Amino acid sequence: MTLNKFKEIEEYMQNQMQDSAHDKHHIYRVLNSAVDIYGHEDSVDFDVLVAACLLHDIGREQQFADLENTCHAEIGSKMAYEYLLSLEWPNDKALHVKECIASHRFRKNCKPQSIEAKILFDADKLEASGAIGIARTLIYEGQVGEPLYILDEDNKIIVDNGGAEISSFFQEYNYKLKRVYNKFYTARAKEIAAERQKTAENFYNGLYNEISNNYVNGIMK
Amino acid sequence: MTLNKFKEIEEYMQNQMQDSAHDKHHIYRVLNSAVDIYGHEDSVDFDVLVAACLLHDIGREQQFADLENTCHAEIGSKMAYEYLLSLEWPNDKALHVKECIASHRFRKNCKPQSIEAKILFDADKLEASGAIGIARTLIYEGQVGEPLYILDEDNKIIVDNGGAEISSFFQEYNYKLKRVYNKFYTARAKEIAAERQKTAENFYNGLYNEISNNYVNGIMK
Repeated sequence: MTLNKFKEIEEYMQNQMQDSAHDKHHIYRVLNSAVDIYGHEDSVDFDVLVAACLLHDIGREQQFADLENTCHAEIGSKMAYEYLLSLEWPNDKALHVKECIASHRFRKNCKPQSIEAKILFDADKLEASGAIGIARTLIYEGQVGEPLYILDEDNKIIVDNGGAEISSFFQEYNYKLKRVYNKFYTARAKEIAAERQKTAENFYNGLYNEISNNYVNGIMK
Repeated sequence: MTLNKFKEIEEYMQNQMQDSAHDKHHIYRVLNSAVDIYGHEDSVDFDVLVAACLLHDIGREQQFADLENTCHAEIGSKMAYEYLLSLEWPNDKALHVKECIASHRFRKNCKPQSIEAKILFDADKLEASGAIGIARTLIYEGQVGEPLYILDEDNKIIVDNGGAEISSFFQEYNYKLKRVYNKFYTARAKEIAAERQKTAENFYNGLYNEISNNYVNGIMK
């Protein structure tokens, strides 16, 4: 991929994601992780991979507008396909990018098949690992107004939600973040995630203890 | 302080802070820390301390409406004083609460003098220590839309801001969070903060390395 072609797709992505600096940083980190993983794999279509990374979240704004009925992976995959055809990409390459984007979320009926789709999936899931996964989750809580923790009647932090709606950082961590480490397809992604795991666990345990001790030693016991 | 009197002040506080679940959790943690510190000090006026903790942030909404000209400690101290007089508190006690609230922020010309004011100051500053300090800062970034990090021209994270406006988590950490540990008045607060310090440092260093390595190993180098 030439620099000019990269810049063109990058500009389109930025126009689709105008409202969120956090989301744009996320796109570049996913791209960086994908390129890192790419260096450890054989026979990967680099252009397909880079386009899929740049465009994988362009459906987010439409999902946000209609959370119940819209999947950003599905919408975004169609938008990316049409866009790449408009750039005169060959149909099979545009279709390949579409498939990568469609399968980048955890979904039972749409798992990544090609190596490019697996690399995008892994690069995106690395964003839920380690300190970066913690930081992104906490920033999200602030954006949508969800609480850091919810206490039960004995002032103990609720850490499980029995599969119900996610509603605090502690529930999100136990439901999603701590489970990500055995869900990667590529060896390099597993390696990066494993390096990050202890930082996340250490922070979670520290936060749990700080808040629990605060209530045990305070007036609200 | 009787439970009924506590509930009455608590209800007033909650009415003044209707929009923020995060802020209310903060109030209770400050109260808990203050009660913990109180158990390690002599000759503390418990009623003054509890009222000061419950009411210390009631000026926040007015500060938020006029950030440049309003200090929530100053406004809140006056609101608390008038409110406690309306509950028929003796003037000297209401004045004492006012002084505690007025001096709970870092300000050159208004440092805490009484033991009650020092305990409130310490209990509030503990909220910037450890994992809880990190979590609160990240949630705040999400609330106001500030970035997790800003990169320089070489894609290195900017960690210092030369005293300028704070604008990313990394700058906020270096400007405020990492400096809090030697700013406590009471021995108990120092002890609690010291227990938390390693968790915060470990998270900060982990996050710095994860992001830095991501850019070094990725396409955006």
